[in-house]
Amino acid sequence: MSYLPVKQLLQTPPGQTVTVKGWVRTKRESKNAVFIAINDGSTIHTIQAVAEAGFLPDDTLRLVTTGACVAITGELVESQGAGQAVEVKIADVTIYGPADPEKYPLQPKRHSLEFLREIAHLRPRTNTFSAILRIRHALAFAVHKYYNDNGFFYLNTPIITASDAEGAGEMFRVSTLDPLNPPKTEDGKVDYSQDFFGRETNLTVSGQLEGELGALALGKIYTFGPTFRAENSNTTRHLAEFWMIEPEMTFFELEDNMALAEDFVKSVIRYALDHCADDLAFLDNRLAEEEKTKKKEDQQEQTLLEKLRFVVDNDFERLTYTEAVEILRNSKPAKKGQFQYEVSWGVDLQSEHERYLVEKHFKKPVILTNYPRAIKSFYMKQDNEPATNSRGEVFGPTVRAMDVLFPGIGEIIGGSQREDDLDKLTARMAEVGIEPEAIWWYLDTRRFGTAPHAGFGLGFERLVLFVTGMSNIRDVIPFPRAPKSAEF
Amino acid sequence: MSYLPVKQLLQTPPGQTVTVKGWVRTKRESKNAVFIAINDGSTIHTIQAVAEAGFLPDDTLRLVTTGACVAITGELVESQGAGQAVEVKIADVTIYGPADPEKYPLQPKRHSLEFLREIAHLRPRTNTFSAILRIRHALAFAVHKYYNDNGFFYLNTPIITASDAEGAGEMFRVSTLDPLNPPKTEDGKVDYSQDFFGRETNLTVSGQLEGELGALALGKIYTFGPTFRAENSNTTRHLAEFWMIEPEMTFFELEDNMALAEDFVKSVIRYALDHCADDLAFLDNRLAEEEKTKKKEDQQEQTLLEKLRFVVDNDFERLTYTEAVEILRNSKPAKKGQFQYEVSWGVDLQSEHERYLVEKHFKKPVILTNYPRAIKSFYMKQDNEPATNSRGEVFGPTVRAMDVLFPGIGEIIGGSQREDDLDKLTARMAEVGIEPEAIWWYLDTRRFGTAPHAGFGLGFERLVLFVTGMSNIRDVIPFPRAPKSAEF
Repeated sequence: MSYLPVKQLLQTPPGQTVTVKGWVRTKRESKNAVFIAINDGSTIHTIQAVAEAGFLPDDTLRLVTTGACVAITGELVESQGAGQAVEVKIADVTIYGPADPEKYPLQPKRHSLEFLREIAHLRPRTNTFSAILRIRHALAFAVHKYYNDNGFFYLNTPIITASDAEGAGEMFRVSTLDPLNPPKTEDGKVDYSQDFFGRETNLTVSGQLEGELGALALGKIYTFGPTFRAENSNTTRHLAEFWMIEPEMTFFELEDNMALAEDFVKSVIRYALDHCADDLAFLDNRLAEEEKTKKKEDQQEQTLLEKLRFVVDNDFERLTYTEAVEILRNSKPAKKGQFQYEVSWGVDLQSEHERYLVEKHFKKPVILTNYPRAIKSFYMKQDNEPATNSRGEVFGPTVRAMDVLFPGIGEIIGGSQREDDLDKLTARMAEVGIEPEAIWWYLDTRRFGTAPHAGFGLGFERLVLFVTGMSNIRDVIPFPRAPKSAEF
Repeated sequence: MSYLPVKQLLQTPPGQTVTVKGWVRTKRESKNAVFIAINDGSTIHTIQAVAEAGFLPDDTLRLVTTGACVAITGELVESQGAGQAVEVKIADVTIYGPADPEKYPLQPKRHSLEFLREIAHLRPRTNTFSAILRIRHALAFAVHKYYNDNGFFYLNTPIITASDAEGAGEMFRVSTLDPLNPPKTEDGKVDYSQDFFGRETNLTVSGQLEGELGALALGKIYTFGPTFRAENSNTTRHLAEFWMIEPEMTFFELEDNMALAEDFVKSVIRYALDHCADDLAFLDNRLAEEEKTKKKEDQQEQTLLEKLRFVVDNDFERLTYTEAVEILRNSKPAKKGQFQYEVSWGVDLQSEHERYLVEKHFKKPVILTNYPRAIKSFYMKQDNEPATNSRGEVFGPTVRAMDVLFPGIGEIIGGSQREDDLDKLTARMAEVGIEPEAIWWYLDTRRFGTAPHAGFGLGFERLVLFVTGMSNIRDVIPFPRAPKSAEF
């Protein structure tokens, strides 16, 4: 390869002959010259190529249109115009692929995010989506780097699973049986013993249970893979297919789990701030423009960059569910009847409550702990002591759960210390109706060499949403999967 | 956390009080002392904890058995025995979780790999599998680091897909329809318009087509995610669910693609050599012991470490398919009729042929290029020139494909330059019966700003197989998925 990416070219000193390869973003012709802005995806910036009017053959110039792929060779010279240090003085242009201006959908004008979602195969060629995808990459790399640097092992938990115990939501069935005439058992059910895996299988909703198997052997592991929810919810916060990060640590208790979650999420956001300055500046500006179109009272107090730096620089607030309920019950919106859902000990907090705590009361990320046992998963470690509030009221039972709540996002991390006592675990499973035989292998870890351990899950797209300042989760994954939508 | 992982403890200077947490591997009692070997998964090594006979209460000592989880506090002292620099002089033992020796399956003796596959939830607690999983982690991290360092962006291509164009094998159907009574269309077919995604969907067999969309916007991308094959083949080389790495690079031609593939695979193996010395030494020894049980003529010429260093230190041999066929036809086994399958221009090479080229003829990794068009995928770039051999025979047509062949593994990488010409691509699609409407979005990249580009796919488990020296692919993924097998 005798050419450099635009990102490097822009930092190359003038005075040498270079080749730039990429896609034309804009072409501008003045009386004396033609200016071609080229982008190759390596950076949000374009490099400008300039030729004197008449230098390029008409047949070539005609094909230099927005979206065309070209190679331009010429001397790298100091730029005459503002906005860039260097530009290419065109000696030669090769057209790899034209882009008919009558047909190419991405013309240099503002396109709505809705329109771009319909051409998800082309939207990475826009500034906004290329910035999002570069940041998504940087965040993913930061995740792997963080865990590698901290002695965790990446564990690939299975995607196709026969286990249904997590109960995190509706599942997608995976099958190779004849869909029209599946084999049937004598009592008229589908005979899954004849299916590919010899049993009914689904797409995983979480790698946690298998992650615990890994942690109880290797010490500290993390997963980072796709997970699935077959929920028919068409919202800006949900995807049918999304990527999840699930660390699991032996010898970690709830406090250690909180410390890790906070350090981890700060670390990866700091990595993005350090490595994606240009893309974040672009999205910061994009969000600021969008905010201007809103009513004053609906505008966010902080810019995107302010919000990111604020999260990195401040301690997260830690309090129990019981304390949070007390704050919420004494809050202005509760007293004025402004919450849609009433709060009392034992109910699951709604988004409006979480946002009040994070955005109004504490004005920073919050970690809520020790939730009522009844609203949390069976595998969470049971608290021995009942919960009490400042008025001495006693509540319970609770579990060592933790949710990390972020401004604008709500829950970004959910986790817990795990129940490591076999008897308590099986008793709780019996209460919620999970057969021990279904997860005999999970219970084996409590039978043999059980240990205190903890972990959490972070929805990767929620993190990307937060860092990019976008508002629809379908805009932070390359090819979103949602009800009635699996194009590309 | 006031304790250190065993890996760090073993490098800590003696003279301080430490806590070690982990699982008992062995307990040995002499007249004067008890020796407990502890492993926590951070390293292949154990740390030894020692107490004078009678120091520990009988009730505690009784529970210190293989597999039990313990915390041991005491002074880190210079070790009296051979094999370790330091050991812990026991002051206190806490039992987190016992492991009844009558029931715990992993007793300190040799277990067969077949048996361990049946307890895949516990096998990461063995030396062999913990070493494999740590190496698997290191290789995965090396993959991300390599691409990040070289300006690639990680692109998450979809797992659930409605696209069936790659034709790489049989697929798993993903559905939420009632399996017993699916809705039907008027002509009696399953009515997928009522399914979750409003169409028939499957698990992806490759992210390549979507990867190309990313590369033709961002320049260089790579995927690293699960892929699926519903093939009913119970071999030591195939999994129904496996992880694949697929880089895709705009402005790369076949030569660039080969150079990248070679540099990439050498780089990640070198990373493992540099970062997994202890685990590789263990597996090197394991393989040497296994080889000893074979007949002399079946034993491998190189040890595991020799093989890895050889790959890293030598240039891969590059030749065309046409040249390879000539070599094979002139080979001793061909002339003696020792190949099971005959070789002639146009047939797909069998494993025996690939292994002959790699292991006997060249004795190093080989990159074969320019395969017959008829045996390769529709998207591969068509060669303009016919192929000729040394006798002047003319063959064709061919495509700019490349396969990287490894000793013992066969094909570890398959790739090609892609057909970037819309007319040639659609003509080839018509020949093999792919409807343009099925991948209209893929064709759009050739309609608008097409560019030369190339890429390849590496089956991650094949790489792990090669680096660990294991012989069954089910032993290098934590929870293998194969026909009739989806436990855990």
